[in-house]
Amino acid sequence: MEKSEATTIEIAESSKERKGKAPLLGAPVAFEQAKVAGYKRGVAIFDLILRISAATAALAATITMGTTEQTLPFFTQFFQFQASYDDLPSFTFFVIAMSIVTGYLVLSVPFSIVCIARPVAVAPRLLLILCDTLTVTLATSAAGSSAAIVYLAHNGNSDANWLAICQQFTDFCQKTSGAVVASFVAVVLIVFLVVLSAIGLKKH
Amino acid sequence: MEKSEATTIEIAESSKERKGKAPLLGAPVAFEQAKVAGYKRGVAIFDLILRISAATAALAATITMGTTEQTLPFFTQFFQFQASYDDLPSFTFFVIAMSIVTGYLVLSVPFSIVCIARPVAVAPRLLLILCDTLTVTLATSAAGSSAAIVYLAHNGNSDANWLAICQQFTDFCQKTSGAVVASFVAVVLIVFLVVLSAIGLKKH
Repeated sequence: MEKSEATTIEIAESSKERKGKAPLLGAPVAFEQAKVAGYKRGVAIFDLILRISAATAALAATITMGTTEQTLPFFTQFFQFQASYDDLPSFTFFVIAMSIVTGYLVLSVPFSIVCIARPVAVAPRLLLILCDTLTVTLATSAAGSSAAIVYLAHNGNSDANWLAICQQFTDFCQKTSGAVVASFVAVVLIVFLVVLSAIGLKKH
Repeated sequence: MEKSEATTIEIAESSKERKGKAPLLGAPVAFEQAKVAGYKRGVAIFDLILRISAATAALAATITMGTTEQTLPFFTQFFQFQASYDDLPSFTFFVIAMSIVTGYLVLSVPFSIVCIARPVAVAPRLLLILCDTLTVTLATSAAGSSAAIVYLAHNGNSDANWLAICQQFTDFCQKTSGAVVASFVAVVLIVFLVVLSAIGLKKH
């Protein structure tokens, strides 16, 4: 009895390899395992789709912010009015952080594919949930800090005597706002990824 | 044979209730289950400690930011120079968001205690990981946006013609910086909570 118990546990861990060797009495267990594997494979496929969408959103945010530049059509003898992302430290942080997030999301696609190929494997899924959690923090802090600066550029602040600059740099403000929105879309998608990985870990 | 398999699965789901009724042949399984339960209980206790620490850090951040106020010792005939958190929208968002985070962390303590009492239960742990992930996003966005404004208050920005206000409002700047640091401590602790919940979900 104890021995057959050990066999079923091993089937749970590597169902594919053992299926051929398993004794006949393991058949209902193998069926149960196949059902769980199918459920986990569905979760993994959804994970891959979400991951690619999040990578696209993060890439769009990075490129939009990184290429934003505006030169005003008027200038004085000594000075030309120009704005680009590296004038504001928060926007520089945004570009760096979102590049890292995009890079991570692209590099994590193979791990997501491993989760589809081996649905009951725990290690790659745990690695993904760990890195995804760190990534969501990085992406959110970049999005939050840039949102604060974009808000300030649009509205200014009379108490601190900071004037709104969006009356002059309209294009610049529109593009940076777009980048911030794209980064928040990426954040929402990565949050879904973490939740999905947790649900995928749950049952096995 | 199929019937005994069903029994062991039911033991896995509610080990305490069934232990008395289980046949003798289930003994090694019960031992295995007790070991897993002990491991999960350890994770849950660590979760509770981290949760209380995070709540404390979030509470400290909220109170520091919410009570910060500075009136300069000089004034003109029409105007008195004063700074408080509600002069800057990002700081207002910070206070609101961190209050919500503190409230959630305090309210989630009973669920964490449920995880200690019933270590193999999946539902409360899954609920915690879901809400923790949402909370980490809220806390990080508050911390990030306030960090951007604090940085601006310290350093100013010559390109946008925003002057540093920390030369005048030294106390105000020190306290808000402290609040931002406390909020980042809370963020790190909540990230650990999410990772810990994922590890707790892994094995059962």
